[in-house]
Amino acid sequence: MVSLSDLPLRDDLRGMTPYGAPQDAVRYALNVNENTHPIPEDVARDIVESLARAVLGANRYPDREFSELRTAFAGYLGHGLDADQIWAANGSNEIIQHVLQAFGGPGRRVLGFPPTYSMHPIIAAGTGTEWVTAERDAGYRISPETAVAAVERTDPDLVFLCAPNNPTGTPLPIETIEAVYAASRGMVFVDEAYAEFMPDEVPSALTLLPGRERLIVSRTMSKAFAFAGVRVGYLAADAAVTDALRLVRLPYHLSALTQAAALAALRHAPEMLAMVDDIRGQRDRLLAELPALGYRAHESQANFVLFDGVADPHATFRALRERDILIRDVGLPGALRVTAGTEEETSYFLAALAELGAGGAH
Amino acid sequence: MVSLSDLPLRDDLRGMTPYGAPQDAVRYALNVNENTHPIPEDVARDIVESLARAVLGANRYPDREFSELRTAFAGYLGHGLDADQIWAANGSNEIIQHVLQAFGGPGRRVLGFPPTYSMHPIIAAGTGTEWVTAERDAGYRISPETAVAAVERTDPDLVFLCAPNNPTGTPLPIETIEAVYAASRGMVFVDEAYAEFMPDEVPSALTLLPGRERLIVSRTMSKAFAFAGVRVGYLAADAAVTDALRLVRLPYHLSALTQAAALAALRHAPEMLAMVDDIRGQRDRLLAELPALGYRAHESQANFVLFDGVADPHATFRALRERDILIRDVGLPGALRVTAGTEEETSYFLAALAELGAGGAH
Repeated sequence: MVSLSDLPLRDDLRGMTPYGAPQDAVRYALNVNENTHPIPEDVARDIVESLARAVLGANRYPDREFSELRTAFAGYLGHGLDADQIWAANGSNEIIQHVLQAFGGPGRRVLGFPPTYSMHPIIAAGTGTEWVTAERDAGYRISPETAVAAVERTDPDLVFLCAPNNPTGTPLPIETIEAVYAASRGMVFVDEAYAEFMPDEVPSALTLLPGRERLIVSRTMSKAFAFAGVRVGYLAADAAVTDALRLVRLPYHLSALTQAAALAALRHAPEMLAMVDDIRGQRDRLLAELPALGYRAHESQANFVLFDGVADPHATFRALRERDILIRDVGLPGALRVTAGTEEETSYFLAALAELGAGGAH
Repeated sequence: MVSLSDLPLRDDLRGMTPYGAPQDAVRYALNVNENTHPIPEDVARDIVESLARAVLGANRYPDREFSELRTAFAGYLGHGLDADQIWAANGSNEIIQHVLQAFGGPGRRVLGFPPTYSMHPIIAAGTGTEWVTAERDAGYRISPETAVAAVERTDPDLVFLCAPNNPTGTPLPIETIEAVYAASRGMVFVDEAYAEFMPDEVPSALTLLPGRERLIVSRTMSKAFAFAGVRVGYLAADAAVTDALRLVRLPYHLSALTQAAALAALRHAPEMLAMVDDIRGQRDRLLAELPALGYRAHESQANFVLFDGVADPHATFRALRERDILIRDVGLPGALRVTAGTEEETSYFLAALAELGAGGAH
């Protein structure tokens, strides 16, 4: 029996284990911040019709420039964006990888503020980019002063910000993004995977793009568009940034099926986003009801809530798992994270948690 | 107007231009070795039905382990392979990238034998792997002795072989693969993108896998399965190799749509492969008829033919382009490459080339 240690694996990969949130078949999967609402039937029908047309031409390579899709994303995002300011990839993970391949890599470093999206340091390592970190303020916030001090201390080639933050849900003040941009010489990457769940009055980092050619704002269709299975991440930036990413992307990286499905879903953006309002309502319900059960819920502008005051996160995770509920132990002491699902899912979760008693399972 | 030079791009990317075969809308696209036969209608219908089911669950992340698809590939390839010996990715380009991320990278080098698949050195550069080269024998062949001498001279961490070779179509003797494996300490990667077009009696490198844990054989659905638009590459190797690739892949890299479409196409493998026989027939016709027009056609076991004796490849490329035919100038002096298409496409191409007179356009 041959094992990994018998192969000439890169030294820096030895002893690593692959990323792996559990993929159990449970009734209440509230662990990976999916949109638990299935795609509406009329939208699904339009997507399938688009896919059927794409299959007929699937013997040909897809449009390497995914021009129609870039135009559609520009239209969806608004803010006067043009198609040549848009880039897309197989999930925001590949977006992050393209950005690090173009602007990071060996001899360069990226600054992040943990706890944050767990793939940021993993993809940094995968591209040979040094991952340097700075502390957040109380309540996982990042003030402009804290961020600028971290930039000045570490002089990074890239800064990764997450607005709102994952796994904490914490809002990121737009003033912090402005200050980081002004203080840094490198690329400033704002991960807005959960932006559609922010309150309407909170400005997106997209508003900062004009005149800031080192700023990148990334989004995903996985959450608001209920498209985690289709793997579509995208970004908006200066057109020169997309020129840079074209140098590192694998040609034809976006399949004809991916392009067709994303285009069809974007045609139904208003209907897809109606689900977002429901989900924001359930998130706000979690924020209101978790304290009534004795937990401290962290402010969240995303489709999930991190809550403190769990006596034994592992035990509570397991007790909920036995009740057919999967939530996420994100490795923060005394805390667990739960996705805001449908009303029924949220009710079921809250009732199960209440049953475990004060502080959860022991 | 901001340009690339205003951005903090990596130094090694400065001045590079992106990969780009032309994507013109022409009637006779014989330039990128696509399968010019559309997918048969009943197969397309089954694929669309599978996609429709996948869309209904597209709000959830796809199976990160693509277990069903790996089982299907193992069944298709045969040779006693198990699902845990199979890996897949978004096109064989991503397969190559995963292999280089796991076994190459900074401080390591990969040996190749140009002219060969143009993405090999590009992806090597993208992963920071040094690309070292060795010369082929006459007629683009590689004898065991030539290959072993190159391995001994360069002591590579990986050796990339292409069987049959692209862009030349040249067969690679299985004895060369065996000898390279025996002589090297690193991974031996055999790119069999065009394997289905080989004569039936030519053994695949898959036959060498037992007992050779450093050997990797990659395939693609782009060519034989007429699936270039769907982006599905895959490989077979020791199960320890797939363990290594799991450390570098981005989680959920294969979408639910990709998995569903590939599974459906594999269910129809015999029907899809019937097209391969037609294409082999047209390739053999090109090999027979190009010499009658005064060109030297190189032996090919792929779905394309490289031919020498072109007085001015650029001029002939343009003259054919004016006749609505796109073929490939692969940068070899006096040579052009043409994909074997349908009977009608091949006839049209040969007639157009004949019209240009001896040696093509001047």
